[in-house]
Amino acid sequence: MTIHRLILIFELMKFSTEELIEGIQSGNKRLIAKAITLVESKKAEHRQQAEELLKKIMPFTGKSVRVGITGVPGAGKSTFIENFGRLVISQGKKVAVLAIDPSSAINKGSILGDKTRMEELSKEENAFIRPSPSSGFLGGVANTTFETMMICEAAGYDYILIETVGVGQSEVLVADITDVFLFLKIIGGGDELQGIKRGIMEMVDVIFINKVEESNFQKAKNTRLELKRALDFIPPKEKDWKVPVLLGSALHNQGLQEVFEKIDDFISLKKKNNRFEAVRTQQAEKRFEYWVQEYILSMMKRDNSVEEAYIQHKKNASAMVSNPSTEAKLFVEKFLRDSSFEFPGSENV
Amino acid sequence: MTIHRLILIFELMKFSTEELIEGIQSGNKRLIAKAITLVESKKAEHRQQAEELLKKIMPFTGKSVRVGITGVPGAGKSTFIENFGRLVISQGKKVAVLAIDPSSAINKGSILGDKTRMEELSKEENAFIRPSPSSGFLGGVANTTFETMMICEAAGYDYILIETVGVGQSEVLVADITDVFLFLKIIGGGDELQGIKRGIMEMVDVIFINKVEESNFQKAKNTRLELKRALDFIPPKEKDWKVPVLLGSALHNQGLQEVFEKIDDFISLKKKNNRFEAVRTQQAEKRFEYWVQEYILSMMKRDNSVEEAYIQHKKNASAMVSNPSTEAKLFVEKFLRDSSFEFPGSENV
Repeated sequence: MTIHRLILIFELMKFSTEELIEGIQSGNKRLIAKAITLVESKKAEHRQQAEELLKKIMPFTGKSVRVGITGVPGAGKSTFIENFGRLVISQGKKVAVLAIDPSSAINKGSILGDKTRMEELSKEENAFIRPSPSSGFLGGVANTTFETMMICEAAGYDYILIETVGVGQSEVLVADITDVFLFLKIIGGGDELQGIKRGIMEMVDVIFINKVEESNFQKAKNTRLELKRALDFIPPKEKDWKVPVLLGSALHNQGLQEVFEKIDDFISLKKKNNRFEAVRTQQAEKRFEYWVQEYILSMMKRDNSVEEAYIQHKKNASAMVSNPSTEAKLFVEKFLRDSSFEFPGSENV
Repeated sequence: MTIHRLILIFELMKFSTEELIEGIQSGNKRLIAKAITLVESKKAEHRQQAEELLKKIMPFTGKSVRVGITGVPGAGKSTFIENFGRLVISQGKKVAVLAIDPSSAINKGSILGDKTRMEELSKEENAFIRPSPSSGFLGGVANTTFETMMICEAAGYDYILIETVGVGQSEVLVADITDVFLFLKIIGGGDELQGIKRGIMEMVDVIFINKVEESNFQKAKNTRLELKRALDFIPPKEKDWKVPVLLGSALHNQGLQEVFEKIDDFISLKKKNNRFEAVRTQQAEKRFEYWVQEYILSMMKRDNSVEEAYIQHKKNASAMVSNPSTEAKLFVEKFLRDSSFEFPGSENV
């Protein structure tokens, strides 16, 4: 265990659940950050405190507008979030910025990166910016952005902006925890649909074509036309909603007010269709299923002999020593036989 | 329990594992079919016999060329398989035809459907046609096409043609168990890429444009051009392989020989690249992971009290009584506490 890691764990341990909750509710950004670090951890002792904390803040969650934001690198996501976030604050709202990164690793330097990227926004009293979770830092890779969002909601943030890094399944993960999905597009070189990640067009609720200037205005309009044509072939995600394709420039604060209004319209429509809460209910069910898997997996990995058995049986399966289903059955038998020990921390919950 | 179901179970029980294996190895189609029904079942007593059977036929599997075939309804998949299958037989090979259907239900009538569809092929001594698995019939929905394929291989079939029904994730399931993936395309009305299911173009190894006649030959060439252009933007799945786009008519036996040769070329290249066995190893690992999940799920569902707990905790999560991760933890604890009973049939394996 490195010194750095020891310090981090020590730091976490310093605060009781009550102190963290008090910090969250009084808007203490340092304690909000600590609480988030806690829920990101997969260590058994942290998970127990994390569950306790989440349970207690539960009644204070759910009030925000949850916005997912995606776009290829270079689409201007950081600049967009910086200026859009400030616009939201100017309407008297509090904004939290999170990032989802299913593939992030230790020491990627994203903390420094995010902080400097959104310099102006981070100075705002009513903004909270959480860098990409450094998964693996405390020994886990579970995706905890949903739980981080709960903490931000309990701290009174009205808009939660969740940025994807565009890697792997990150858009699906974001779509699974947000109310509205925003796609930032830049003007392309002709074939506008080329380069759009598969599935994005089916997920999106609002499209913003960024970096539009006088010089490329005609091209921007062509891009819009092509996107609209593609959208015509995609069944609508929400009844009576036609995905708007907006033009603007995040850098020059152009078109951001329109994005804000369209998000508002979309949320209103969802509520009118009785779909707002219904979708959130479905999302919570998915989160439950996700965590059931996570916990079973963590049980498997926690016990060395179980993990060794997993590796061995998988190896047998891949070497076709016997068929994969037989090896799976042998493994699951062993796992269930050996897992009658106590769940970590269960006695105190 | 219906009479029909009782009869089916009785039919299964009549044969010992040894009789079934003998039947498979002597090419007795009736016993091959019985063995497949056995591995499709998820009943505990059947699964035990199924694992035993699969274990014993293991050394006789793996020798076939595994071909996945997809295409929209109306692309002519049945006619293609009928005439392509006969062509393969004319080269001195034995052909088995399977279908993957992750969504199939009881009494869909697909048995009769498949049989009449491939009338000529089904008369061939060296052909075996297995209709879509009637998942759920014996109480399960597990995808067992891989295990069915093992039985066909042990019975000496050289080519296994696996047709997708194009529903849900069926193409992914097929790609995960085959060596080569064939896409049947019909000539469209201009925008050729529209209507192709997302992800298909990335999966495909050989494309066959079907139903090409003199009257639409120019259109067919345009379709080919558009497909080739789209393929240029997709990173190659296999080093040094350029996905061929072939023209032909399955009904008139045109172009099928070329498909046969391209499949052969592709397999040879994969072997040269040391990727043939490597991909199969990866596939077996995936099957192992799939079955670990299946068995854990079946354990959860087997015990009424566990299933009730699952439903209750999920309901709590969706009603936001407490956060989803807490509910998941409570459920997994209960599951592991209660699952120290014996695995069904484990004592005899």
